Amino acid sequence: MQTASERPWEELGRIVEARDADALLQFFDTLPQNEAARALSRLPDRRQAEVLAMLGHEEAAELVDGLAIAQAAHLIEELPAAEAAAILHELPSNEQADLLQEIHHPEAEEILSAMDPGEASNVRQLVSYLPTVAGGLMATEYLAFSADATVEEVVEDFRRNAERYVDYEVQYVYVIDAEGRLAGVLQLRDLLLGRGPTSLRELMIREPLSLQELADLEEIQHVFESHAFFGLPVVDAKGRMLGLIRRSDVMAALAERADSAYRKSQGIVGGEELRSMSVWERSRRRLSWLSINIVLNIIAASVIAYYQETLAAVIVLAAFLPIISDMSGCSGNQAVAVSMRELTMGLVHPREVLRTLWSELGVGLINGLTLGTLLGVLAWLWQDNVYIGLVVGGALALNTVIAVSLGGIVPLLVRRLGFDPALASSPILTTVTDLCGFFLTLSFATAMLSRLAT
Amino acid sequence: MQTASERPWEELGRIVEARDADALLQFFDTLPQNEAARALSRLPDRRQAEVLAMLGHEEAAELVDGLAIAQAAHLIEELPAAEAAAILHELPSNEQADLLQEIHHPEAEEILSAMDPGEASNVRQLVSYLPTVAGGLMATEYLAFSADATVEEVVEDFRRNAERYVDYEVQYVYVIDAEGRLAGVLQLRDLLLGRGPTSLRELMIREPLSLQELADLEEIQHVFESHAFFGLPVVDAKGRMLGLIRRSDVMAALAERADSAYRKSQGIVGGEELRSMSVWERSRRRLSWLSINIVLNIIAASVIAYYQETLAAVIVLAAFLPIISDMSGCSGNQAVAVSMRELTMGLVHPREVLRTLWSELGVGLINGLTLGTLLGVLAWLWQDNVYIGLVVGGALALNTVIAVSLGGIVPLLVRRLGFDPALASSPILTTVTDLCGFFLTLSFATAMLSRLAT
Repeated sequence: MQTASERPWEELGRIVEARDADALLQFFDTLPQNEAARALSRLPDRRQAEVLAMLGHEEAAELVDGLAIAQAAHLIEELPAAEAAAILHELPSNEQADLLQEIHHPEAEEILSAMDPGEASNVRQLVSYLPTVAGGLMATEYLAFSADATVEEVVEDFRRNAERYVDYEVQYVYVIDAEGRLAGVLQLRDLLLGRGPTSLRELMIREPLSLQELADLEEIQHVFESHAFFGLPVVDAKGRMLGLIRRSDVMAALAERADSAYRKSQGIVGGEELRSMSVWERSRRRLSWLSINIVLNIIAASVIAYYQETLAAVIVLAAFLPIISDMSGCSGNQAVAVSMRELTMGLVHPREVLRTLWSELGVGLINGLTLGTLLGVLAWLWQDNVYIGLVVGGALALNTVIAVSLGGIVPLLVRRLGFDPALASSPILTTVTDLCGFFLTLSFATAMLSRLAT
Repeated sequence: MQTASERPWEELGRIVEARDADALLQFFDTLPQNEAARALSRLPDRRQAEVLAMLGHEEAAELVDGLAIAQAAHLIEELPAAEAAAILHELPSNEQADLLQEIHHPEAEEILSAMDPGEASNVRQLVSYLPTVAGGLMATEYLAFSADATVEEVVEDFRRNAERYVDYEVQYVYVIDAEGRLAGVLQLRDLLLGRGPTSLRELMIREPLSLQELADLEEIQHVFESHAFFGLPVVDAKGRMLGLIRRSDVMAALAERADSAYRKSQGIVGGEELRSMSVWERSRRRLSWLSINIVLNIIAASVIAYYQETLAAVIVLAAFLPIISDMSGCSGNQAVAVSMRELTMGLVHPREVLRTLWSELGVGLINGLTLGTLLGVLAWLWQDNVYIGLVVGGALALNTVIAVSLGGIVPLLVRRLGFDPALASSPILTTVTDLCGFFLTLSFATAMLSRLAT
């Protein structure tokens, strides 16, 4: 019995404890998908695995399919390998591969051993691709026929395999030759309009657009943006058909890339963090990033230690140092974001460093002068000393120009060095701008010391 | 004549200047889509408009379709209204609406007036929805028939309208009653397998899943995640069919949301910035964000000004203040990113403040102790004064706990207040943690002043 005030995971917990399979099915049938995922994530790991075990494989697969990939992988890992393999069997090949890539190596190996050998070798092949190339995004469920097949024969095949094809999300029928090379494509609609004895050869569109197995996400995105196809076939270097990429999979990969760029910019690296992970695991992942950052911070701050005497003479500068370092960081990160966007969209090439530098220099000058004047005037009025204003405002203005110009080009340089610009750009940028900001302020102050000290 | 070293936009510029329409078509046919977009973006605004004017409407629409929405809107604005309307006519309704939402009001109104009245009223309706609800994501191109229609009749209709339906990306055939209410759905495959005289009523799946016109992106996402449909019909409160949302449109909207969250976290607000915009426009957009930030920074730094005397007595603390403020900001932003992710995925409800606080407290304690100890020991060794270590390390440890706990709940609170958490969380968080960090360090130091001053 459910009371209105009860929280769903408490009910779920009781259902699992009572091992009431019917109530469990009903629980997931009545709850919206996101509520179900949330309720599940609130149970202890062991209980979560029990939920999956109590469901049929098909229902378990449906539940897994609706979860975030990290949560789903975490859950699958907890299951006995045979159980995990049976649930994976109900998922399309590209989702099997995505999950297995998230699961730790020994567990993934066990699950693969428990799978049907053909299915396992197929998914092993998919796992071997980087997740952002065509081979890593494709599914191997597609329909291919010989060019000699007739409309009648294909329709008959559809009738026989209707059950299985339901999961294929069939849009196109591909035509392949005896060597498995892609020869043509038909839309389902063409079959509908074709007469029974017509061969596919007569109806098919020849030399269809296809993607090479190693084409990267950017290239795939541009092909899908230039053409209104639902899906595109993936071929190897010899033109043999390997799989099918759907438009929605490309869009999902782009969403994942943007999500991951956002997380990295905020210091969550090494994949998703879920609050259902242990506190130690979460702390460890976050510390790996923080410990690099504290070292960079100490390096930048050492400039302040070096100029202690100047600072002691004009103690009010200590209040301006964090403002100058923080504001320059903000200005520089804006330029980083614009460059990241233009890199992603292919509007700038990583080699176009000078052009980008030039384009940011103007913005840096305008914003540097504006912010520098603002802070300088405030400092002047507050301390009633125009030289304090000149030091502080001048340092912020100049450092803003440096930060904005640098922010524009750092992602390009990081990409050229082969690192991930979403991850490395911001720490590199802020370390340099902190260092420069402290140096400019304190060296200007040292030069003008006689006019500043009161 | 093209030399290997020539940059494509220079060639494009010359082709436009020579008004050579054939060369232009060939240029776009041979260049990959992303190169074409990049080349186009390098031309002055006026020249870009000339390129579109030289192409046929269909080719121009194809080119526009491949551009980023901000770039495409910018380009369409430059055209005479009649020209723009003719190009929009070639695009699907949801893309027309997306573009018109980006175009400034007076220009958009002119273009709408130049469009076919029926088409204009249709797209006006779409523009009236928020871009993240079902109505704002749907296209109005779909196929609907009466339940009495037979397979034969539908196939005949397909044959007659093949030309037009090519652009519909037909997957499903919807069945509506006399009042326009959604009554059933068929897959194209069902038609293929059905016999000629069968009525749709006999083949259709009744009471198909549908989305309410005002369903939000999160809800739409979860429906698509729980079911393997290509597209879902959108209905109004009375169950009348209004349009169709495709899976790929949902994924594209999710990618856009994640992209925009990343840009906001880096201080690019108010939409995309393209380097093809004017320097003044770009500076103005960035300054709107920076000017708020500098005020927040000054507020936080005023704590330092207040404790000037303590700082003057222990000048070495000035080097630690930016480290403590920056590290706390990093730790807090990690918690913000995790909360943003859990909010987006529906794993946490904005009301679950205490639960989130509790879950972050543990991570904050572990990381605070680790980082505080590290910095404290360094300060002690450097200054050969254990009290300096205690002040600096204690302040960082405590402020990390505050920053992490606060970072976890700020997005929830901001969301409950109805603001955009991607935009507001980080500035609120860092202002508070800067303020607290400065206060903790300098008040601890004031209390221990006799043991610190040398």
